Amino acid sequence: MTKEDRTPVTVTGLGSMGRALAGAFLDAGHPTTVWNRTPGRAAPLAAKGAVHAGEMADAVAASRLVVTCLTTFEDTVRALEPAAGALPGRALVTLNSGSPAGARETAAWAAAHGARFLAGAVKNVPSAVGRRDTLLYYSGDRTVFDEYGTALRVLGGDTVHLGDEADLAALYEMSVGAMLLPALTGFFQGAAALRSRGLEAGTMVRFAEKWLDMIKSLLPLYAREIDSGDYTDAASSVNLFLAGAAHDDELRKETGVDTDWLAPLNDLLKRAAHAGHGEHSIAALTEVLKGAGPGVTPTPGTPGS
Amino acid sequence: MTKEDRTPVTVTGLGSMGRALAGAFLDAGHPTTVWNRTPGRAAPLAAKGAVHAGEMADAVAASRLVVTCLTTFEDTVRALEPAAGALPGRALVTLNSGSPAGARETAAWAAAHGARFLAGAVKNVPSAVGRRDTLLYYSGDRTVFDEYGTALRVLGGDTVHLGDEADLAALYEMSVGAMLLPALTGFFQGAAALRSRGLEAGTMVRFAEKWLDMIKSLLPLYAREIDSGDYTDAASSVNLFLAGAAHDDELRKETGVDTDWLAPLNDLLKRAAHAGHGEHSIAALTEVLKGAGPGVTPTPGTPGS
Ligand SMILES: NC(=O)c1ccc[n+]([C@@H]2O[C@H](COP(=O)([O-])OP(=O)(O)OC[C@H]3O[C@@H](n4cnc5c(N)ncnc54)[C@H](OP(=O)(O)O)[C@@H]3O)[C@@H](O)[C@H]2O)c1
Ligand SMILES: NC(=O)c1ccc[n+]([C@@H]2O[C@H](COP(=O)([O-])OP(=O)(O)OC[C@H]3O[C@@H](n4cnc5c(N)ncnc54)[C@H](OP(=O)(O)O)[C@@H]3O)[C@@H](O)[C@H]2O)c1
Repeated sequence: MTKEDRTPVTVTGLGSMGRALAGAFLDAGHPTTVWNRTPGRAAPLAAKGAVHAGEMADAVAASRLVVTCLTTFEDTVRALEPAAGALPGRALVTLNSGSPAGARETAAWAAAHGARFLAGAVKNVPSAVGRRDTLLYYSGDRTVFDEYGTALRVLGGDTVHLGDEADLAALYEMSVGAMLLPALTGFFQGAAALRSRGLEAGTMVRFAEKWLDMIKSLLPLYAREIDSGDYTDAASSVNLFLAGAAHDDELRKETGVDTDWLAPLNDLLKRAAHAGHGEHSIAALTEVLKGAGPGVTPTPGTPGS
Repeated sequence: MTKEDRTPVTVTGLGSMGRALAGAFLDAGHPTTVWNRTPGRAAPLAAKGAVHAGEMADAVAASRLVVTCLTTFEDTVRALEPAAGALPGRALVTLNSGSPAGARETAAWAAAHGARFLAGAVKNVPSAVGRRDTLLYYSGDRTVFDEYGTALRVLGGDTVHLGDEADLAALYEMSVGAMLLPALTGFFQGAAALRSRGLEAGTMVRFAEKWLDMIKSLLPLYAREIDSGDYTDAASSVNLFLAGAAHDDELRKETGVDTDWLAPLNDLLKRAAHAGHGEHSIAALTEVLKGAGPGVTPTPGTPGS
């Protein structure tokens, strides 16, 4: 940020993430107005220099840039309703999690109330807000991103505009986020296995970290296979993973841990092999996952079904 | 390695991994003898200076350090049987994947034939063999590790001895490895979702890499929670993940991708909440995964059931 950028900003929704966002704007010297349904949560920010608005309408009126971080898109629209009259001409930026359909609905609502709209996602924890390498992505009205990009970069140095369709950030958020719970559950299963033997989970951390680095190194290759549709030059084949799946049973027998959650993964492998992908790269699982239904091709900016 | 270490070594099993192992020993100047069931695979190594033994017994007799990299422990024992007479006094080091029970059985077999035994695992791909940061872990006879540690470090600079029990490397291999397929499947699902919208999987790689870094940063914290059994100071709670699980349905509706494989993960979350872990850290899933059965507490060095 240049020292000269003192864009006034309003932050509404002061949960763990919203407080971090407002704190980052304050630290960077932006005149910051805050609002929260439960007003008590605004006190620490007010002590740091934020203006505490008691009514949403006052909060929205205070700044041309309004950032929201409520739990869902529905909560956001509901909380903004009483302030709808103040919205025309403002830039509304959401930073909650939610579905692409929710982003489209909110975009339509914002358009109907005369606000420019950008839907963003923070791909990190509150404590990472404000760091140079913290990733936030946005999609929607490019003029908002261009006009307020410097201010938004206060929240994280790796700030990206994905495209004009308001639901793209939510789509990427879902797509990238899909690794989290499965990967963690794998780690917890490993930890449970070690603990069944009286070993500390901490003893595997260094190895698990290296393993994630190895997994990371595979992604560009797999993405190329997926985008080309050519899975024939397999470094690790579906059949290799199928052979490994036999070990799930051994792990259960050996350590007593519950491996049932892996059963549908083994089914996916079998379906891939059955579809002729046995000797193809494991990335061919993508083709099996695609197969479930027709998929919606949404019209950008229109409310979802 | 000191320039003086020219420990002769035998490598048997010249698949993609075995060839990389033998190549690394040759590159480091070790007199290397190789054997493979399909003899033709030895030719490129012989051209690089390896001695090609036609019989397993000759291969074993050629070096006091014998490294095997066949598909399974069973294959390894079967292939070594004809050479059993040459085993007494030698150090046998396995580097295949396999179960802890398989490692214990092989340890018992090696002991019965007078060989010292170390069971190892390469936690990487063949092309990583020989790098300074490549991880290999071993467990079993510590005297083998101490005597041949310098030679073994040729295969990867991050070479670790986990303990005297021969099955520990296999146990860690399974435990750490449990993240791979679930994490990749999450990535493939995300890729399928993007492609349903006409977007390239390659556009998410940079974000997915960062996401894996974020996941990596969580592991030490979760391991501490697991080892202390205290899940009350939750940065991300089970209930938070349960709320997120509702998005699986939206993803399927939005993109048509198959999300069925996530159903048992949602069940795990519900079981954790039901067991009183709703507001606890997501790491409390470990307790639910532990619950399935009694688990075996194997006696080290004894064959498994
Ligand atoms: N925390 C993270 O690690 C993280 C990371 C990335 C993204 N996110 C996303 O950021 C968003 C907020 O998360 P958080 O962690 O800050 O959640 P949080 O701590 O639970 O806070 C939720 C906020 O939303 C407000 N809210 C909810 N429903 C409302 C309604 N109907 N009307 C008015 N206000 C309402 C709450 O107000 P009250 O104070 O009055 O309850 C509170 O300010 C979520 O979408 C979350 O998925 C969070
Ligand atoms: N490749 C990897 O990325 C990787 C990574 C980590 C660990 N590993 C582990 O390393 C081990 C070897 O993997 P790889 O990738 O090298 O496999 P591979 O390319 O399929 O080679 C398998 C090797 O085992 C031999 N073999 C199998 N059964 C045999 C038997 N009954 N008698 C004699 N020889 C037998 C094969 O001999 P023939 O040539 O005669 O068939 C070949 O040399 C596996 O346990 C694997 O899980 C591999």
